This record gives sequence, C-alpha cells and structure tokens, in this order.
Amino acid sequence: MTTTTLLPVVDVTACCSPLTRQTLPAENAEDLARSLKALADPTRLRLISIVAASEGQEACACDLTAPVGLSQPTVSHHLKVLTDAGFLSRTQRGTWAYFALVPGALDSVARLLVSA
Amino acid sequence: MTTTTLLPVVDVTACCSPLTRQTLPAENAEDLARSLKALADPTRLRLISIVAASEGQEACACDLTAPVGLSQPTVSHHLKVLTDAGFLSRTQRGTWAYFALVPGALDSVARLLVSA
Repeated sequence: MTTTTLLPVVDVTACCSPLTRQTLPAENAEDLARSLKALADPTRLRLISIVAASEGQEACACDLTAPVGLSQPTVSHHLKVLTDAGFLSRTQRGTWAYFALVPGALDSVARLLVSA
Repeated sequence: MTTTTLLPVVDVTACCSPLTRQTLPAENAEDLARSLKALADPTRLRLISIVAASEGQEACACDLTAPVGLSQPTVSHHLKVLTDAGFLSRTQRGTWAYFALVPGALDSVARLLVSA
C-alpha cells in the first residue's frame, strides 16, 4: 500500500515581495524565519542535495543514512523537519519511507531573498 | 572620524553549484547553514528589510529599535549577527553606528537555493 503524507504547506511567498524591496510584515517574517531555520543545518542541506541528485528527485530513507554518516533515528529526525517545513514530501512504500523534493519549495524561499 | 568594520566575508558561493544540482560537500554545507542561521530569525529578517528600504540602503542603529519594538541591546545583538555573517556592514559615525546592506550577500545565498 502506498500512502503519501499531505504537506502542511507554509507558502511564504503568498504574501510578500522580496525582503529588500518592501518592509517585511512581522507575521511574514515569522513564516520566512521558520522556513530558513528548517534549512539552516548542514545535515539537512546535504539531505536535500542528495535527494535532489537522486533519480526522479526521490530517495529511500534507507539510502540516506550512509552518505551523511549519522544514525538512522537522527537522519529520520532531520527528514521530518524538512517534510514538516514543506521542502520534502514523504511516501511510505512497504517498510520504507521515500522522500522527494517538493517542486518550487526552495525557489519560493530563494525568491524572497534576491534583490533583483 | 569614520571607521568601517571590515567584514569576515564567508563567500558561500565561491565553491558551489546550487544545492539541487550537485551534492553539497560537507564543508560547504557548514558555511551555507551558518549563513542561513544568521537569517533564520524574524527580527533579523525585519532589520534587513528596514535597512534595505532606507535611503542608500543604510540606516542608523538609532532608527532601528522602534520599528522592531525591542530594546537597543537586543537590536544591537541582532545587527552584530548580521554583520558577522556578512549581510550588513557597520560604519561608526560619531556616537552612532550605521548599518548598510552588503550588495550581493543575500543574492549569493538565494542563488544556492534556486533549482533553475
């Protein structure tokens, strides 16, 4: 059976101009800070990068522990943070969970940071 | 007398392709995570945004406490984090410190996040 976790999409771009074009309202600053915090970890950045480089931009959790050299529970925690923040989606296939890059999620954060 | 603090420029883009194009080496993941961590705070995002909206993309520290509604020492701490991370530069003019947006600093982080 295949089940896909529905994402709590926090669309930080729904509201705002880039950070440097218009003063950021407090509420939107909270949302963007939350997204950046999910990304601001070297292991999580590497996990995103490895998933993105995998076929179909999807990888089995079982293939993600070795490249980052951490325990399976630690990697699972980081994958959950990225999934909760909307950067990865999670699909359960039998024993294993597969993680895929959510198209456009990183771009929407990047767009808020660019000045031009 | 005018003194400008020299920045410890951590150029996270000197090395790397965007995160989703190539697996991020551990060392570069550390640098990018550090930059993102400096940004991942709602007050710091608002401070950047306010400085960017100021004339010449520069603002006196004395004009930055009221808009974010925090004490001067707290705001100074946040400004120091942003300066240390290379997003703002600091110039002392008499009693007051002025903070300016470092051109291209936010863009360089954004470029590492975009997929296209």
